[in-house]
Amino acid sequence: MRMPEDDRPAGDPSRPVTISYIAESAGVSVPTVSKVINGRSGVAADTRARVKALINAYGYRKTTAPPRSNLMELVFTELESMWGVEIIRGVQRAARKHRLGVVLSEFGPAGSTIHYWVEGALTRRPACVVTVAQLSAADRERLRDRDIPFVVFDPTHELPDDVPFVGATNWTGGRSAGRHLSQLGHRRIAMVTGPDRILCCRARFDGYRSAVEAAGLGFDPALAVQAELTQAGGHAAARTLLARPEPPTAILTTNDLQAAGVYQATREAGLRIPADLSVVGFDDLPITALMDPPLTTVHQPLAEMAVAATEMALALGRGERPAQIGVELATTLTVRASTAPPRV
Amino acid sequence: MRMPEDDRPAGDPSRPVTISYIAESAGVSVPTVSKVINGRSGVAADTRARVKALINAYGYRKTTAPPRSNLMELVFTELESMWGVEIIRGVQRAARKHRLGVVLSEFGPAGSTIHYWVEGALTRRPACVVTVAQLSAADRERLRDRDIPFVVFDPTHELPDDVPFVGATNWTGGRSAGRHLSQLGHRRIAMVTGPDRILCCRARFDGYRSAVEAAGLGFDPALAVQAELTQAGGHAAARTLLARPEPPTAILTTNDLQAAGVYQATREAGLRIPADLSVVGFDDLPITALMDPPLTTVHQPLAEMAVAATEMALALGRGERPAQIGVELATTLTVRASTAPPRV
Repeated sequence: MRMPEDDRPAGDPSRPVTISYIAESAGVSVPTVSKVINGRSGVAADTRARVKALINAYGYRKTTAPPRSNLMELVFTELESMWGVEIIRGVQRAARKHRLGVVLSEFGPAGSTIHYWVEGALTRRPACVVTVAQLSAADRERLRDRDIPFVVFDPTHELPDDVPFVGATNWTGGRSAGRHLSQLGHRRIAMVTGPDRILCCRARFDGYRSAVEAAGLGFDPALAVQAELTQAGGHAAARTLLARPEPPTAILTTNDLQAAGVYQATREAGLRIPADLSVVGFDDLPITALMDPPLTTVHQPLAEMAVAATEMALALGRGERPAQIGVELATTLTVRASTAPPRV
Repeated sequence: MRMPEDDRPAGDPSRPVTISYIAESAGVSVPTVSKVINGRSGVAADTRARVKALINAYGYRKTTAPPRSNLMELVFTELESMWGVEIIRGVQRAARKHRLGVVLSEFGPAGSTIHYWVEGALTRRPACVVTVAQLSAADRERLRDRDIPFVVFDPTHELPDDVPFVGATNWTGGRSAGRHLSQLGHRRIAMVTGPDRILCCRARFDGYRSAVEAAGLGFDPALAVQAELTQAGGHAAARTLLARPEPPTAILTTNDLQAAGVYQATREAGLRIPADLSVVGFDDLPITALMDPPLTTVHQPLAEMAVAATEMALALGRGERPAQIGVELATTLTVRASTAPPRV
């Protein structure tokens, strides 16, 4: 349907030329038209050509978006009591620096208010959006169409390459935890893994396996037990592991709550930490320093990640093109009192 | 300086009649004029008469404030990782119901950004303000002058009677914790108290003392040791208490972090909880269920308090006059595994 540029199509000339109108005329979706307009990938060559022709024919011009407000948006699906505050504080720190107010939204258990949020956010014209919630492709398109820059905080699922994000080095964290245990002399190092569909769980597990293999210990699938990311999950998995004919002398968990469950199972089995069993957590939540004994764990720099996400989103809003639109900030191992050499 | 109403005072007639202008003319502060205009207490009768006369003489009329936005404000001095999220979630729940966006502000360690916040808040014309931070009298006046309704969340200091607030029944919580221990049969019940300047600490202590006296045990000042509201504070206080010639068989703390310090000191002394010492905390933070043994503690309904504060502020904004402008929501005792009858 290649059209000469001077050949205005039939149709209501009084109707404004919007993206929806072009999408309808081309028989494609609004996001597809938006991708073509914004020069992004993910559109077949012939579709792209057809949409471009219509854009030219209709004389569509990307309207200049109204100026952004001095507010920014921070969105969560559900605020987790243990993680949320560190993220909020990081965003607040960056927002104060730029004199921005922060609109905080929680979509609620079923993400039921996400639609209402998108409408609100579009109306408020925020300077930027940092999203801990997973926005759908359609929601991301709507923000892009309105020229509202956004960055995904610690994505739990794989994203298209053009979606900016800030995460943590989960693989490296898992590997450093595994190495710490092998360097202490442990030979039977187990892991309580998390749901495989959550990207960071998979990365942490891969890091652990890689450390175990690098130490020449070989990976024993019997020593990796999957569990939910809760205290109860860690408890059940540790019971399974400690009941093995050759139980592990060290257990690495996928998060700190699981580690609290491992503590519980260890006490119930009449074993002591770290004398009989070393335990390493992941996240370094505020609770870990209060655990008995204080937990050795992989520290996620949540506040720093939040600062970085905010700064990246604001830079995108200024039209800057960061060298990397996806970054992972380094995790570090916080060694406390739950790890020791194994008993001979 | 009584003035006939038709006698316009001298002065620049082109200058608009503002509250500042009246204050200047009357030789009083802006907040004083505001109090008179809004019919609030705290102004001497003769001053009130003088200001009223000027208001009439100058023909000052309270300008109708522009409509409020569909945003509300939630402000903290410092977001505490353990408390903050519950408060935020309660405000979010109420805000979602009213379809309001929530602007979250943290003033930072020195409250350094409070001035910038007040400016921003005035500009944003929020539907209401819920403040966990202690606003100064001047800041409260500025909000009132601009007709922005606000409610103080869990005030830490005494407030004038006309300042709306939502708190928790701290005295009753301290009393129910003390009663729980006396009913278990404890005769030597100690308390790690908090800084006396913080109102809730004083109320919790008074509740404990009242329970001890009601049980006929008599109050022994040697069993009340003051400490900061931290783990280290609880640790030091418990060491002092356990070193007494007649040590207590039960310790009540002013918050859960202090209780974690008591756990630490108890372990160090070679004692077991609850066999040798019962411990009761206050707040019911998420960590308490993970402590070893899980902590018996007084539950503060933070999320419900936040919902109530938001609803009260919005009601004030609709011009409603709640029956009570200060309310305390009930605390409840959460009995877990850190309390038991004393050993005979």
